[in-house]
Amino acid sequence: MKASQFFVSTYKEAPADAEVISHKLMVRAGMIRRLNAGIYSYMPMGLRVIQKVQAIVREEMNQAGAVELTMPVVQPGELWQETGRFDKMGPELLRVQDRHGRDFVIQPTSEEVVTDIARSELRSYKQLPKNLYQIQTKFRDERRPRFGLMRGREFIMKDAYSFDKDKDSAQISYQTMRQAYRNIFDRFGLRYRAVAADSGAIGGDLSEEFQVIASTGEDAIVYCPQSEYAANIEKAEALAPGQPRPAASQPLVKTPTPGQSTCAQVAEGLSIALATTVKSLVLATDVQDEQGNITGSTVWLLLVRGDHDMNEVKVGKIAGLDKGYRFASEAEILEHFGAKPGYLGPVGLRKPLKIVADRDVAVMADWVCGANEVDFHYTGVNWGRDLPEPDVVADIRNVVAGDLSPDGQGTLEIERGIEVGHVFYLGTKYSAAMNATFLAENGRPTLFEMGCYGIGITRLPAAAIEQNHDERGIIWPDAIAPFTLVLCPIGMDRSPAVREAAEKLHDALLAKGVDVILDDRGERPGAMFADWELIGIPHRLVISDRGLKENQLEYQHRTQTEAVKVAADDVLAFLAQQGVFQEPGAQG
Amino acid sequence: MKASQFFVSTYKEAPADAEVISHKLMVRAGMIRRLNAGIYSYMPMGLRVIQKVQAIVREEMNQAGAVELTMPVVQPGELWQETGRFDKMGPELLRVQDRHGRDFVIQPTSEEVVTDIARSELRSYKQLPKNLYQIQTKFRDERRPRFGLMRGREFIMKDAYSFDKDKDSAQISYQTMRQAYRNIFDRFGLRYRAVAADSGAIGGDLSEEFQVIASTGEDAIVYCPQSEYAANIEKAEALAPGQPRPAASQPLVKTPTPGQSTCAQVAEGLSIALATTVKSLVLATDVQDEQGNITGSTVWLLLVRGDHDMNEVKVGKIAGLDKGYRFASEAEILEHFGAKPGYLGPVGLRKPLKIVADRDVAVMADWVCGANEVDFHYTGVNWGRDLPEPDVVADIRNVVAGDLSPDGQGTLEIERGIEVGHVFYLGTKYSAAMNATFLAENGRPTLFEMGCYGIGITRLPAAAIEQNHDERGIIWPDAIAPFTLVLCPIGMDRSPAVREAAEKLHDALLAKGVDVILDDRGERPGAMFADWELIGIPHRLVISDRGLKENQLEYQHRTQTEAVKVAADDVLAFLAQQGVFQEPGAQG
Repeated sequence: MKASQFFVSTYKEAPADAEVISHKLMVRAGMIRRLNAGIYSYMPMGLRVIQKVQAIVREEMNQAGAVELTMPVVQPGELWQETGRFDKMGPELLRVQDRHGRDFVIQPTSEEVVTDIARSELRSYKQLPKNLYQIQTKFRDERRPRFGLMRGREFIMKDAYSFDKDKDSAQISYQTMRQAYRNIFDRFGLRYRAVAADSGAIGGDLSEEFQVIASTGEDAIVYCPQSEYAANIEKAEALAPGQPRPAASQPLVKTPTPGQSTCAQVAEGLSIALATTVKSLVLATDVQDEQGNITGSTVWLLLVRGDHDMNEVKVGKIAGLDKGYRFASEAEILEHFGAKPGYLGPVGLRKPLKIVADRDVAVMADWVCGANEVDFHYTGVNWGRDLPEPDVVADIRNVVAGDLSPDGQGTLEIERGIEVGHVFYLGTKYSAAMNATFLAENGRPTLFEMGCYGIGITRLPAAAIEQNHDERGIIWPDAIAPFTLVLCPIGMDRSPAVREAAEKLHDALLAKGVDVILDDRGERPGAMFADWELIGIPHRLVISDRGLKENQLEYQHRTQTEAVKVAADDVLAFLAQQGVFQEPGAQG
Repeated sequence: MKASQFFVSTYKEAPADAEVISHKLMVRAGMIRRLNAGIYSYMPMGLRVIQKVQAIVREEMNQAGAVELTMPVVQPGELWQETGRFDKMGPELLRVQDRHGRDFVIQPTSEEVVTDIARSELRSYKQLPKNLYQIQTKFRDERRPRFGLMRGREFIMKDAYSFDKDKDSAQISYQTMRQAYRNIFDRFGLRYRAVAADSGAIGGDLSEEFQVIASTGEDAIVYCPQSEYAANIEKAEALAPGQPRPAASQPLVKTPTPGQSTCAQVAEGLSIALATTVKSLVLATDVQDEQGNITGSTVWLLLVRGDHDMNEVKVGKIAGLDKGYRFASEAEILEHFGAKPGYLGPVGLRKPLKIVADRDVAVMADWVCGANEVDFHYTGVNWGRDLPEPDVVADIRNVVAGDLSPDGQGTLEIERGIEVGHVFYLGTKYSAAMNATFLAENGRPTLFEMGCYGIGITRLPAAAIEQNHDERGIIWPDAIAPFTLVLCPIGMDRSPAVREAAEKLHDALLAKGVDVILDDRGERPGAMFADWELIGIPHRLVISDRGLKENQLEYQHRTQTEAVKVAADDVLAFLAQQGVFQEPGAQG
C-alpha cells in the first residue's frame, strides 16, 4: 500500500471531549472520527485494526466449531417481549417504531433472536451441541457515552450462543469457548487475564471475564502470583481469618470524636490503626404481603473494617438480602439507632435489627465504632460483652492486596484491567422464557442449556492502546497493527535512487505477504516519523541517499528509541528475524 | 468442513409469503430465515455466499484505489437536515429518537456522513481524488417489503463515494469505478449487462446500472446485439423515423366504434393494424403566481402510436413538463375536449391545448383516433389537413424490440434484468447542500465533484438464483457458491473404506484450498443428493463401496443430469480440469 493512495490523517491536538489516552490517540492518529456522542466512523486506518481483530476472532471461533451467521440489527419488539426484556431494559435499549407503528429495537445483543432460531431449527438432540455466532453492529444508548470506543453507543461485538442438550454438555461447550478465548487473546499479543466473574442469579462458577491489563482500566483484577488464581474484585473471596478472636482487653468507653464522621478521621484523631475501626452500613428490605403490597421493612446493619470496602455483589447473596435491598431511609435509621447517619454503630440500639458482620469484623476485639450520638464514638468495643454476637457472619468485603489467595497458594495482588471478553453459562434462562425446546433422547421436549460469549471487537483496539502507548503515540502488537511495517524514504521526490529502492522493497515485502505501507506523501522526515509513531506501526525502515551510498537502511522498532543500521542486501533476512514475516519452511 | 459441524437445514416447502423463486429457494435451502417483514437472518449457508460476494467486491474496490471505512448505522438527524433529506424522504427513512429525544436515522445510504467526513478531512486538492467505500448494514422501511432479499427492509450494501477537484477528474473516477464494476461482475460468474440509465436532474450520461439478466427481472433492458449499446427502458432513445410523412390518401371519416375505448379494440373492430391508431394521454401543469399560489393550469395532449407505450422519464424532460406534471382532471378534460376519457383525440377540440406528438406519430398519415364523442373514432386523420401540426415533436415512447439502435449499428432487443449495481455521477448536489469544500490550486474554497457507486451485496445472491436455478434448486457459479464441492459418501456409517476415502479426499481438497464440505450426517443417498442440489453446490463427488471396489468415484456437475465415473487415483487432476482449483503454476 502506498500512503498517497490510502487515507492518512493525523492531528496534533486531541479533541476536548477525550478523557482517556486511547480516545485521544485514536482520534489523533485518524483511526476514528466522532459523528455524535458515542457514535464513531471507523476511518480507514482504524478499520484495518478492527478487521484484523475480526479475522483472528473468526478464525478461532471457526476452529472451535462455532458456526457464523448474521442476525438483524433491527429486531421486532414482540420477540423481546417474550423474555420481558423489552420492558425491563432501561433507556439503554434503543426502541423504534416502523412506518406501521410496530415496535422494534436496535440490537444490543441477540439472545432473543438466536433462541428463536434454535427453537425452530434445532429440533433434535442429534443436532446438538451447536454454537452460533455473529460479528455485528450493536447499539446501547448509554446515558453517558465516553472514552471513545471504550464506552460507545454504537459498537461491534462478536456474540456467540451455545445450545446443549444437558448441563454436562453445556460445561464442555463452555470450556471449549474458554479455550478459544485464550487462543484468541494469545494471538492479539496483549497482556491479559482470564478472571473468574460473578455469574449472578444463575449461580455456579461458569463465568469468566477476559481483561486486558492496563493501569487505566475501570475494573480491579485480583490474582495470585504464586498460582493460577484470578478473579474480578466482585467475585474474589476474602478467606476467613485464620486466627480466632482475641479476648477483650479494653473497657467500653464513649469517646469524643468531634467532627470525625469517617473511620479515617476517627483513626487519625485517636491515633489508632484504621484496621481497629468498624464501618456501619444500614440497608433495608421491604416486607410484602401475598398481594405484593409493601407492609413494612426489615433493617440491616452491615459491619466492615474501617480499611475495607463493602462488596455489593457479595452482600446481594446473603439470605434475606438476595431478593434485592436498598439503603435505609433516614426515618428507618432514626427509628433503630436514635441518631442520624455519620456516627452510627451496633452498640446501644434503640430497636433490634439484623447485624451482618464481615468475617474479619467477627474476629476483632477492642474495636471502635460510632456511638449513635453526634461527635462520639465507642472505643474498646467487644462482641458478646458490649453487644450480642452478629446474626450473620459472611464475606461482604472486597479483597485487598496481601490477602490470602482463596486457593491457599499465596497472597493476592490487585491490578487494573479492561473487560473485552466474557464467557457465561446461561442455563435455561432464555430457553425457559421463550419455551425453546428440542426433542431429547427420551422423546420429550427439553429446554436448551445455553451459554453466551462476547468479545468487544471495537473496544479491543482501545484496550490495546491503553496498555501499549508512550508519549509519542500508540504501540501496536504486530497482530493487530494497521500496517506491520512502514517504509520511510527520505527525499523520494529528489532522489531516483531512494524512490527505486523504496518501491523495490515495497514490492518485495508485499510478495512476502507483509502488510507494508510506503510513505510516498513527500512529508519531511520529522513529520513523517512523528505520524507513524503516533499511528503506532511496529516496524520502520528508513531509506535515504546517505544510507544507500553505504548500502545501508535504518531499522527501528516502535518500542526502541534508536535505529539500527541494516545492510540493504540483508534486509529481508533481518526482518524475518524480527518476526515481520515467516520464511516458508521456517519454524513458527 | 464437515456437514455435522456446520448448519444444514433444508425445507421441502417454501413459505406462503414467498412469491419469487429466489425467495423460495433461499428459504428452502436454509440460507435465510425471516425475522419480520423484509428482515432476515443470514443463516450460515447464506452468509457464506454473502461473504464471498463481499470478498470479491472488497478486493476489486481496493484494487481500483478505493479506501474502505465504516460509517455508523445510527446517524444524527441534524446532518440529514443539512441536505433536506431528513424531511424530504418519506417513511422509507427509519427515524428514531435517542434517550435525550434527539433525532437519528437508521442509514439507508451515507451521502451526508461521507460528505461531512470529506469537508473536514480532505482539505486540499493534493488529497484528491479520493474514493471512500463501506460494506455496511442499511435499512429502508419499504411500504411493501417482498421477494426475500430482493426487496428487503434491512440489507447490506457496498456504497462508495468519490471526491474530485473538477469535472474532468470526476469523469476519470467514474470511469475507474465503471471498470471496477465490470471486473466485479465478471468475477461473480453471472450474465449481466451494464446499461446506460437516466441520471435525472443531474443530466449528462454518467449513470449506469449493472443488471443481472433474468427473465423474472423487474427492469426492461434494451440492447443491440450488433453493438455495445445497452440502456434501461427509461433511457433508451427511440430514433426519429427515417422516412418522411406520406401524403394523405383517405378522407376524414367519423366512424362508429361502439364500446371500443382502447386502440386495440378499435384496431380489431375496424380490422386495421394497431400501428395505424394513435393513443391520447392528457396531462396538466399548474400555473403559479410569484407567491407560489396556483392560479390556473395548462393542459397537454400527448400522442403515441397505439402499439407504443409512453415513457414517463422522457415526458418529464419536455420543456414545460420538466418541472413536474399530473394527469388532467375530468373537469379539465371536459373543458378542452367536450367529452369524457375513452374516446379522446386531437381533432375538433373545444379549447386549444398543447399537443406533443411522439416522433413516430408526427410522420403518420391516414391515422385513427378518438372523435371526442362516445362510441366514435375518426379514421383517415391527417396532420395539417384535419388539425394543426403538433406544438412539440419528441421521443416520448418506450423503445420496442426491432427499433433501430441509437448508435446506428443494428436493431434493438429487449430482455429483463435485476439491478444489483449502480454507478452515478452526483456533481455538486451534496457538496453544495453541505458546503463541502477543499482548497483548490488557485487557493479558493471549491465544492467537491462527487460520484456514488452502490452494489446490493445481499440482493446479488437473490439475483444470481433468479438467473441460475432449475426444478431441483439453486445452481451457484463457483465464485459465490457456499461450498465449491460436496463429498457425498454412501453408507459412511457402515463402511470404514468409504469413511476413510471420504476423509482422505476431504483433507486433500482442503489442502488444495478447495472450499469442500463432507456430508457426514448419515442421510440416505436420495435425501443427501436432494439437499445439495437444492442448496446448489456446483461440484459433487459420490464415494461408495461399490465404486471403491472398482477404484472409482462418481462426479456430477450441478448443471448435469448424469454422473461420470472418475478413477479414484486421478480425481484431483480431474477436478483441476473442472476448474475446482488451480494447480500452482497452471495458467489461469
